[in-house]
Amino acid sequence: MANHKLLLLPGDGIGPEVMGQVEKIVSWFEKQGLGSFSLERGLVGGAAYDAHKQAISEGDMKLAQDADAVLFGAVGGPKWADVPYQHRPEAGLLRLRKDLGLFANLRPAICYPALASASSLKPEVVEGLDILIVRELTGGVYFGEPKEIVTLEDGSKRGVDTQLYTTGEIERICAVAFELARTRRNKVSSAEKHNVMKTGVLWKQTVTALHAKSYKDVELEHVLADNCAMQLVRWPKQYDVIVCDNLFGDILSDVAAMLTGSLGMLPSASLGAEDPATGKRKALYEPVHGSAPDIAGKGLANPIAMIGSFAMALRYSFGAGEAADRLEGAIADVLGAGTRTKDIAAPGANAVSTTEMGDAIVKAL
Amino acid sequence: MANHKLLLLPGDGIGPEVMGQVEKIVSWFEKQGLGSFSLERGLVGGAAYDAHKQAISEGDMKLAQDADAVLFGAVGGPKWADVPYQHRPEAGLLRLRKDLGLFANLRPAICYPALASASSLKPEVVEGLDILIVRELTGGVYFGEPKEIVTLEDGSKRGVDTQLYTTGEIERICAVAFELARTRRNKVSSAEKHNVMKTGVLWKQTVTALHAKSYKDVELEHVLADNCAMQLVRWPKQYDVIVCDNLFGDILSDVAAMLTGSLGMLPSASLGAEDPATGKRKALYEPVHGSAPDIAGKGLANPIAMIGSFAMALRYSFGAGEAADRLEGAIADVLGAGTRTKDIAAPGANAVSTTEMGDAIVKAL
Ligand SMILES: CC(C)[C@H](C(=O)O)[C@@H](O)C(=O)O
Ligand SMILES: CC(C)[C@H](C(=O)O)[C@@H](O)C(=O)O
Repeated sequence: MANHKLLLLPGDGIGPEVMGQVEKIVSWFEKQGLGSFSLERGLVGGAAYDAHKQAISEGDMKLAQDADAVLFGAVGGPKWADVPYQHRPEAGLLRLRKDLGLFANLRPAICYPALASASSLKPEVVEGLDILIVRELTGGVYFGEPKEIVTLEDGSKRGVDTQLYTTGEIERICAVAFELARTRRNKVSSAEKHNVMKTGVLWKQTVTALHAKSYKDVELEHVLADNCAMQLVRWPKQYDVIVCDNLFGDILSDVAAMLTGSLGMLPSASLGAEDPATGKRKALYEPVHGSAPDIAGKGLANPIAMIGSFAMALRYSFGAGEAADRLEGAIADVLGAGTRTKDIAAPGANAVSTTEMGDAIVKAL
Repeated sequence: MANHKLLLLPGDGIGPEVMGQVEKIVSWFEKQGLGSFSLERGLVGGAAYDAHKQAISEGDMKLAQDADAVLFGAVGGPKWADVPYQHRPEAGLLRLRKDLGLFANLRPAICYPALASASSLKPEVVEGLDILIVRELTGGVYFGEPKEIVTLEDGSKRGVDTQLYTTGEIERICAVAFELARTRRNKVSSAEKHNVMKTGVLWKQTVTALHAKSYKDVELEHVLADNCAMQLVRWPKQYDVIVCDNLFGDILSDVAAMLTGSLGMLPSASLGAEDPATGKRKALYEPVHGSAPDIAGKGLANPIAMIGSFAMALRYSFGAGEAADRLEGAIADVLGAGTRTKDIAAPGANAVSTTEMGDAIVKAL
C-alpha cells in the first residue's frame, strides 16, 4: 500500500479544532491497515504570521509542493486586521493556490436530506439538491497585473485590478467541468458576463469551441453570471455543473452553499494539472466555511466539512474511492442517527461538540 | 406647473408592452391637471439596431441628454445574438449610463406582503423585507480600459478587463448610500473584496474615511461581497442599505430582487450628479427585470416594475412625491384586491393581462 504524503495546515479560528477530527480518522484508517499516511504539519494564515511574519513560510510552501495532498483548515480573524496587506492571512491561501497551480476548484453543494429544513429556502426548492460549482482558481482578477493603488497628482487615489484570461486557462477549467458532468447528470452551465466583459466574450467563445470539438455528448448552456445567481435562488435544481471564473465562482459557490443549509458541511477540492510523467496532480482540500473566529475554541464547530474534504482527498489524490465512500457513508449514518452539532441542530435541541461529532464518525466507520 | 421632459425608450421584448401602461398613467396625471409632461419617444437596443444599425442613435442620445428623465424598458433577445459586439443591445443601455453620468443606481428589494409566498425562500425570511442596493454604475470593470481580446503569437487569445476606481468615484456613491440610509433605518453595509482586490482595499478605506468625516450618525459595516451574497440568502433582513461597485451590484441586486418573489415588480433609478447651477440631475428609470423575449407580445408581462419606475421618476426627478405616493398606493391597492398578472398569480389561479393590470392601476389612482 502506497504511503501518502499529507500536509495538514489547520490555520486559524476553528481550523485547528476541525483538523483535529481528521487526524483521528487518519489514525483509524492506518490502524485498520486501510491506508498509510505520512503526516506533516504546518502553519498558514494568522498563525503563520504570528510565528514567521508571513502568511505561509518558505519551509511550509516546500512541504506543500512535496505533499500528495494538502488539507487546509481556514484562515483569518480580527486579530490580524492590521497586518501589512501582503501578509494578511488570505495571502497564504492565495499563494498556495497560485504556486501549486491549483486551477480547478470543485465545490459541491449538496443538500443533506436530514438538513433540508435548515435552509432558508423552501424545502421543495432544495430537497435533493446536488450541484457542483467548478471554479477557475489561479487566474482572473485575483492575480492579474496591474493590481495596485496609485496616488494621483491631486492627492486622491486610484485602485486597479486586472481581469485576465487566456484561451488555454479557459479550456483547461472547462474540460474539467465537462469531464465531471459526464460522471453526473451530463450538463454544464457556463456563467460569465459576455454582455459587459471581454473576458466573458472569450470565455463564451472558448467553451463553445471546446464543447463542439470534444464534448458534444454533454449538454452545454450559457448563462449570465447575474442571472445565474438569481436562478440559484429561484430554482437551483435546474443546474448540474456550473463552470465559471475565479470571482464569479467565489460568489456563486457561496450562494449555492448557503442554499443547502449545510454550510458547515461542504468540502471542496482544488486540483492542479496532471503531471504527464507521474500521473499525479497537486491538490488542496478545504472546507467551504471560514475560520469563524466568534466560535473558535468553544467546541461548537462542525467538523463535517473538514472530514468531507479528507474524503475528497481519498478519492481524488489517493485513488481510494472505496475508503472515501466508507467515510462519506459514516457521515451520512451519523447524521441519519440524529447526531448534530449546534449549527445544524434544531433550535433548542441537544447538540454534540466538535470532538463528539468526530468520535461519532470514527465509530460509524 | 412645470412641464417635464420625459423620454420613453421602450426597447425590446416586453419593453414596449409595459411602457404602454406607463403612457396611460402619464395621460391620467395630465388629464387630472396633476402634471404636465412633454413626451418624446426613441429606440434603444435591438429595436434601435434594426432601425439605425446602432444600439442607440445619436439623435436619441441627444433627446436623453435634454430630457428631465428617461424611462427605459428593457433590451436584448435572441434575434440580436450575432450583431457586432459594439452594437449589441446592452451597448445602448451602457452608453446611456456612461454618457449621462448616471453613477448612482438605486435598486430597492421590497417583498410585497401579498407576494411573500411567491418567494423561493421561507416566508419568515422575506416577509416585510425592505432593503436598498446602491450600486455604482459608471465605473469599475464595466468601463475600465484596457478592455480587449488580443491574439497571442501562438494563435491563442487573451481577454482583458480592467477594474478601476478612484477615491472620488467611491466617495460620491457612498455619500448617496449614507444620505439614503438617513431616510431609512440608518445603516449602510459596504460590500467589497478587500481581501483580494486593490480596488476593494481603496473602497474600504474611502468609505471608512467618509463615514468618519461626515456620517458618524449612520451605522457602517463592512462585508465581503461573497459573504454578502450568502447573508442575503440566509437572513436578508439584517440589511438596510448595501453599497457596492458596479459588478458586485449587478449580482447582489439580482439576488436581492429574487428573494422578494417580486422580480416583475421591482423598479430602479439611475441618477447623475446634481448640477449646481440648476439643482437638476440626469436620471434614467428602469425595471429590474429584463426583456423576457419568451413572453413578449403575449400580454403576459407584469407592468408594475415599469410603472413603479415612473413613480420613482415622479419622486426623484419631478419633485412630485405626493403623486409618487398616490401611484404606489394605487399599485398596493390593486395587489391588495387580488389582481395578479401570471408571474405573481398562484399556480392555476386567474391572471389578468398586461393591459388589464395597467387599466386596474389607472382606475385605482
Ligand atoms: C479567503 C478568500 C481569499 C477566498 C477567496 O476569495 O477565494 C474565499 O472567499 C474562498 O472562496 O475560498
Ligand atoms: C443588461 C446588462 C448590461 C446590465 C448590467 O450588467 O448592468 C443588467 O444586468 C443590469 O443589471 O442592469
